[in-house]
Amino acid sequence: MAALTKTDLDRVLATVDADLNASIERLFAFLRIPSISTDRAYAAECRRAGQWLVDDLASLGLSAKLNDTQGHPVVTGTSTGSAARRVMFYGHYDVQPVDPLDLWESPPFEPRIVENADGVKRIVARGSADDKGQVMTFVEACRAFLRATGRLPVEVTLVVEGEEESGSANIGPFLHAHKDALKADLALVCDTGMWDPQTPSIILSLRGLMHDEFVIRCADRDLHSGYYGGAAANPLHIIAKIIAAVHGPDGRIAIPGFYDGVVEPPDYAREAWSKLDLTPANFLGPIGLANPIGEKDRLLIEMISSRPTFEVNGLWGGYTGEGSKTVIPSIATAKISCRLVANQDPVQVRDAVRAFVRAQLPDDCTVEFLGGEGSAAVAVRHDNPDLAKAARALEAEWGTPPVTVGEGGSIPVVGQFKKVLGQDTLLVGFSLDDDRIHSPNEKYDLTSFHKGIRSWVRILAALAE
Amino acid sequence: MAALTKTDLDRVLATVDADLNASIERLFAFLRIPSISTDRAYAAECRRAGQWLVDDLASLGLSAKLNDTQGHPVVTGTSTGSAARRVMFYGHYDVQPVDPLDLWESPPFEPRIVENADGVKRIVARGSADDKGQVMTFVEACRAFLRATGRLPVEVTLVVEGEEESGSANIGPFLHAHKDALKADLALVCDTGMWDPQTPSIILSLRGLMHDEFVIRCADRDLHSGYYGGAAANPLHIIAKIIAAVHGPDGRIAIPGFYDGVVEPPDYAREAWSKLDLTPANFLGPIGLANPIGEKDRLLIEMISSRPTFEVNGLWGGYTGEGSKTVIPSIATAKISCRLVANQDPVQVRDAVRAFVRAQLPDDCTVEFLGGEGSAAVAVRHDNPDLAKAARALEAEWGTPPVTVGEGGSIPVVGQFKKVLGQDTLLVGFSLDDDRIHSPNEKYDLTSFHKGIRSWVRILAALAE
Repeated sequence: MAALTKTDLDRVLATVDADLNASIERLFAFLRIPSISTDRAYAAECRRAGQWLVDDLASLGLSAKLNDTQGHPVVTGTSTGSAARRVMFYGHYDVQPVDPLDLWESPPFEPRIVENADGVKRIVARGSADDKGQVMTFVEACRAFLRATGRLPVEVTLVVEGEEESGSANIGPFLHAHKDALKADLALVCDTGMWDPQTPSIILSLRGLMHDEFVIRCADRDLHSGYYGGAAANPLHIIAKIIAAVHGPDGRIAIPGFYDGVVEPPDYAREAWSKLDLTPANFLGPIGLANPIGEKDRLLIEMISSRPTFEVNGLWGGYTGEGSKTVIPSIATAKISCRLVANQDPVQVRDAVRAFVRAQLPDDCTVEFLGGEGSAAVAVRHDNPDLAKAARALEAEWGTPPVTVGEGGSIPVVGQFKKVLGQDTLLVGFSLDDDRIHSPNEKYDLTSFHKGIRSWVRILAALAE
Repeated sequence: MAALTKTDLDRVLATVDADLNASIERLFAFLRIPSISTDRAYAAECRRAGQWLVDDLASLGLSAKLNDTQGHPVVTGTSTGSAARRVMFYGHYDVQPVDPLDLWESPPFEPRIVENADGVKRIVARGSADDKGQVMTFVEACRAFLRATGRLPVEVTLVVEGEEESGSANIGPFLHAHKDALKADLALVCDTGMWDPQTPSIILSLRGLMHDEFVIRCADRDLHSGYYGGAAANPLHIIAKIIAAVHGPDGRIAIPGFYDGVVEPPDYAREAWSKLDLTPANFLGPIGLANPIGEKDRLLIEMISSRPTFEVNGLWGGYTGEGSKTVIPSIATAKISCRLVANQDPVQVRDAVRAFVRAQLPDDCTVEFLGGEGSAAVAVRHDNPDLAKAARALEAEWGTPPVTVGEGGSIPVVGQFKKVLGQDTLLVGFSLDDDRIHSPNEKYDLTSFHKGIRSWVRILAALAE
């Protein structure tokens, strides 16, 4: 098959530009379907959103299907051309709930374009950024190729699930069951953001996640502090001592074995990171904080992306009602989670955390562990050639090279792409920090959508080279 | 007036014994009134219980009255004889709520006598030990004197409130308003317990109490731990560090100024305490613990009675529902209370605690303090002559000298007896550790009731000497 010429590429990009209004109309139709996956009342709407996408992919000539699962169905769409390489694109058609509804300035499932005083146009609707708008950047890029050139530069397999916002329980089994059909050279995910409105980014790694819950029990009943106070162990004091001991004064996690396997980033990566304009003032300032609390000898970008963390997400025990009650409670509970980085084993981290807790427990108290689920971090090798191709493509579109960093969050399914399907994942997305995903008035800048489509056109062309 | 002879005393005690069944019937009538002070639905029942006691005191010839307050009324009963001395007796006619009702083996307001396999007879009902049964030991002692001898050896003023279980909000103002009428040589309180079933006790001191609540705020909203984890301050970690720093490895409270004013007990008191059979095994064993956690160089009895404490009574923040949520919360809250001992100023302790919290707070986080109410400890001088008289009386009844110790709990009104009325208080009571006060199946041993009445007969006689 003939390679894509520069003229071909320009023709495809011109098609994107010419077709933009129709692309917006299609996205609006998708956004009007309230596919809230966490609420069973919206199950039929989830199915309707999946079917809408199946129909749209079929209209492109893809072999598209709505695949039933134990939960909401998975959309697949497969091109059947003869390009030398194949990419698998992952996204999700489900959206977050919309409450509190009274904080929305317009109905969440009635998408509209709002023009700011500064002239920036935004698509406002639930799912505009997370993830329907981002999914459609890829779909529209495919459409433009097919319209302008009659073919795709690389074959594509789309996998778009309907349970990302409700735990992705069924995507793992689905990947297992269809692993031969889903095989590709590379996975692409469009569920992340730009570095800033002018600078694209490629996410090189996602942190893993280990959850656990500690239940510490001391006396066999709640005690009166007048009678027992001063002598009886208080599980709130014990759990506080354990939590307080987790982080040393240097910000480092003091749990023996916690950092086992953690590798240092290459020097050039750290050098690039140190040039990023990521300061405590611009990162923490907007949320009312001033000082990063991570390891003192690390860059802020490392703290939030390439270093593991230990956070207490919930803590409770004793009397929490109005007024006071002089009780020494019998039970204290903490929910914790650790963000993990490449080469950390979630099971080993869980065991290290549990050993640390046990070691600090008085003889006459007990601890029970609930939870302890984990997913490992995923990382793309810095020397993956597709990474360089995608970076060049993004630079061509945005006029500035992409920032290539790790992301602090976790998308557990990406780990499965490697584990089950054997493929690396490039995470490229166009949402912005102020897109209010999961919040009222979610939006997606029209520029994110338009240049996002154009970016995928360029990336697909580059991956074919 | 002629002093009470040994024969007189024997006659009064014989009257107690002969009248026991009628005494029990009277107590049962009192116990049948569900005077739950915390629940407004029982307001009329509280009033009815107060009126029942007024009628009973009037039947003894006392000048009795139901005094209205902003809350439940206060019962007063005053003898008008010509004895040289006067004592003021304090108790309460209100009771704790009864839930969980399904754990009661018989209806809480249908008192009955249950005989155990070991032959011990118990009065089972809400309020049997706390405090109706104990109040009636004193009333029945007065009745026996009046029946057997026609007079009381010391004049009595009873003050029985109806809000002890709901905060005693109105007793302070009542004491202030009636301080001349309530003036006596000594206050007596029967709301405490025996050392063990064979050994009476006199409580020499009550710990004071200081409550506070800390609300620590970091970011101005809850954060996603994937995005901010590793950089943003977590108030649960901060509150844990603060709590963990309160107690040193030696069990001592490390808050600067916390122990200001605390005095050491006299050597003879500590010597007597060291001979008490109070061991970790018999004190903590029954609640499932083994090791006292107080100051390492202190006796267990000191930890729970003569030394101040700091306890976290409630602690919460973040996600406490089912499953996991990767949130870094913006707020953490702790409810704390300190038991105080003689010469500690509650306001000074509160300020020391608050300064300690503030000193450990990162610059970009804030703390708000709610609460901070306090009552000082109260103590009877070891050389008070009435103490020796009461001790001899109790030894005569029980065949063993009373243990004289401090009590770890707090009865704030006792501080007011000293402050407002200028009188010391002797705390003598007959409840046992297993009386389940505040819990289902509250009971009062028949021996506690019977020998409690006899004990007051002997104490009143001794106080007249």
